[in-house]
Amino acid sequence: MALIVQKYGGTSVGTPERIHAVAEKVIRYRQQGHQLVVVVSAMSGETDRLLTLASSMTERPAPRELDVLLATGEQATIALLSMALQAQGCPARSYTGAQVHILTDGAHNKARIKEIDGARVNADLAAGRVVVVAGFQGVDESGNITTLGRGGSDTTAVALAAALKADECQIFTDVDGVYTTDPRVVPEARRLERITFEEMLEMASLGSKVLQIRAVEFAGKYNVPLRVLSSFESGDGTLITYEDEGMEQALISGIAFNRDEAKLTVVGVPDQPGVAHLILGPIARANIEVDMIIQNVAPDGQTTDFTFTLHRNDYQRALEILQEVAGELGARQVSGDTKIAKISLVGVGMRSHAGIASTMFEALAKEGINIKMISTSEIKVSVVVDEKYLELGVRALHEAFQLSQAATA
Amino acid sequence: MALIVQKYGGTSVGTPERIHAVAEKVIRYRQQGHQLVVVVSAMSGETDRLLTLASSMTERPAPRELDVLLATGEQATIALLSMALQAQGCPARSYTGAQVHILTDGAHNKARIKEIDGARVNADLAAGRVVVVAGFQGVDESGNITTLGRGGSDTTAVALAAALKADECQIFTDVDGVYTTDPRVVPEARRLERITFEEMLEMASLGSKVLQIRAVEFAGKYNVPLRVLSSFESGDGTLITYEDEGMEQALISGIAFNRDEAKLTVVGVPDQPGVAHLILGPIARANIEVDMIIQNVAPDGQTTDFTFTLHRNDYQRALEILQEVAGELGARQVSGDTKIAKISLVGVGMRSHAGIASTMFEALAKEGINIKMISTSEIKVSVVVDEKYLELGVRALHEAFQLSQAATA
Repeated sequence: MALIVQKYGGTSVGTPERIHAVAEKVIRYRQQGHQLVVVVSAMSGETDRLLTLASSMTERPAPRELDVLLATGEQATIALLSMALQAQGCPARSYTGAQVHILTDGAHNKARIKEIDGARVNADLAAGRVVVVAGFQGVDESGNITTLGRGGSDTTAVALAAALKADECQIFTDVDGVYTTDPRVVPEARRLERITFEEMLEMASLGSKVLQIRAVEFAGKYNVPLRVLSSFESGDGTLITYEDEGMEQALISGIAFNRDEAKLTVVGVPDQPGVAHLILGPIARANIEVDMIIQNVAPDGQTTDFTFTLHRNDYQRALEILQEVAGELGARQVSGDTKIAKISLVGVGMRSHAGIASTMFEALAKEGINIKMISTSEIKVSVVVDEKYLELGVRALHEAFQLSQAATA
Repeated sequence: MALIVQKYGGTSVGTPERIHAVAEKVIRYRQQGHQLVVVVSAMSGETDRLLTLASSMTERPAPRELDVLLATGEQATIALLSMALQAQGCPARSYTGAQVHILTDGAHNKARIKEIDGARVNADLAAGRVVVVAGFQGVDESGNITTLGRGGSDTTAVALAAALKADECQIFTDVDGVYTTDPRVVPEARRLERITFEEMLEMASLGSKVLQIRAVEFAGKYNVPLRVLSSFESGDGTLITYEDEGMEQALISGIAFNRDEAKLTVVGVPDQPGVAHLILGPIARANIEVDMIIQNVAPDGQTTDFTFTLHRNDYQRALEILQEVAGELGARQVSGDTKIAKISLVGVGMRSHAGIASTMFEALAKEGINIKMISTSEIKVSVVVDEKYLELGVRALHEAFQLSQAATA
């Protein structure tokens, strides 16, 4: 018997029929002897309906009141799922975030969980009930309703699993696991049976939108085994966990990519301490997030070129900021490119294997793809290429590293 | 400066536009220097939408879960109204029933308020905020969400007014006050400026569906002046309060009536102690509510006829119960009538005036209306007549007691 926390997203509970299907799935796990805590999101479409109502009140609703409004979405789902479970003879009880004391900070619309009191849930589990908890929401120290921001239901599930010391946290979604890359780009892409937290973080932040990054971070921090499964199909999904002895030792776990990138280069700034800060300070103050950062010494040895990537939506604003700053810096010019894409190889196996980067560059070169930027970390190698080469590059790499076959080593 | 608790029902907050209109109304009161606590219902249609969702889960949703679901309706409205107030520059803060500790018993779907902690509301009022509270809902001692049953928002408003020692509780609704009788039956019906709690209770329980009976009882018990006003038109509405010296001393305040009545008579039961209990015991155990009860001694002096009225929907079930009991009782027969209606004259002035009943009977006799049952209390006289005479009877009485003219005495 295991204690399992399951999370079903908005699509999985999008209609009364789907809620019944979730109830059946939960009951099947229970019949296998497991204890179950189920975290649910608002029915798909509901959050948008509520946001439309809010925007008919005011352009800028107060964050506190927006949270009161949005929290009704999950509250409705917990009641409905509990009813569906009870209708099939399964004892169940629903709880809002406030009712199980999902204590957060007071940052409305993007609160962070500080503490969960598992006592009430444990009492219900001991009494043989399935416990249904509203995702995405909590309560601050003054009793105000807070929300964790969109997708926060994943975080609720992981946090609950950590607080209850659950054996596994299962995230049911509309994909049946984590793939070596996007199957829409590479039809041979393969579902991974396991992946490490660190790899998953790189995959997620690089554009494979399967799980919320915060949820993965949380799971890693508290060592909660996390499994991604399909709500609609059967299968074991992908288990996200720490690297262990018996683990499939893939060189590369997957290829992530990101289309919405742009890059900006400040050309010919003096090669002096503090330059990076002078360039990125104004960008950060404008709340623009920067991704890759590269600084090259120019041939003259006196000046340097400073390049970074950012979201394409922020390009124009960042360009204007830099053009203002360029004068002060004595930069020769500011240039940019909005037609780029990033491709990243991710794998903990890289740590112990040399030559990954060169195999990567070779595979891309064979297809005539020019690399504009390179950035590496312990478990990933990212390259920026012309956007038009994105699919070609991803396919070439998937092939080069034989990702469609399960690792044997 | 007065502290006013206002309550706006589902129709008053039925659309974003109407919520904006409520916000404007609230702000006008605030500009007059009043402190305001606003209780709101779910947007009209919302509760039915939620009930439909519940019934798509199971025919008999658990009362606890139904309350979790239904409570989302008012929670959405408090957030939206707070946003609308803030959008117009008025500081406001929303609270669910649980957040302001509207403590109820644990009777889900029909809970009763036990206690309200006004501290949080008072703090906000002192800080110059309008406080917006979800009607209809509370929380039991274990932290479970409860609802007071449909229409319970009136009760929330009155209970809050009592707890906060408010100067007035204003119920905004789709009628502009309490009338001498239903204007659809008597076009000359007149809006009353004042009416006593006792009269209002008789009017309400007799079928004038302006306010929830429990709210009126509550207001009477805690002596909270209660005012019924229109959400959509201006005007002073009707003030419901205790009788006082300077009060308009109407002989009769109004005429209530009820169409959905039926009567049942157990004919020729022995005139012995305990007969009433033997007849009504099984009826009560079947959860059937009985209204008027009359027992006449039959001409032979040995037996009695026992008659009572009840809701027409319960007639068939009650008839079957009585037919079973009739044998044990030695009754001659059980007869009934489903085509009856009740008309009641209500007025505290009756206490000090003789002859009300005879004027009433005379007015009905003039129109050839036969009276089937009579029942009196300190402040009302009710008669049961053939249903087809209902409108005629009400109009004759309205005329006979000159109710379309304001009282002068």
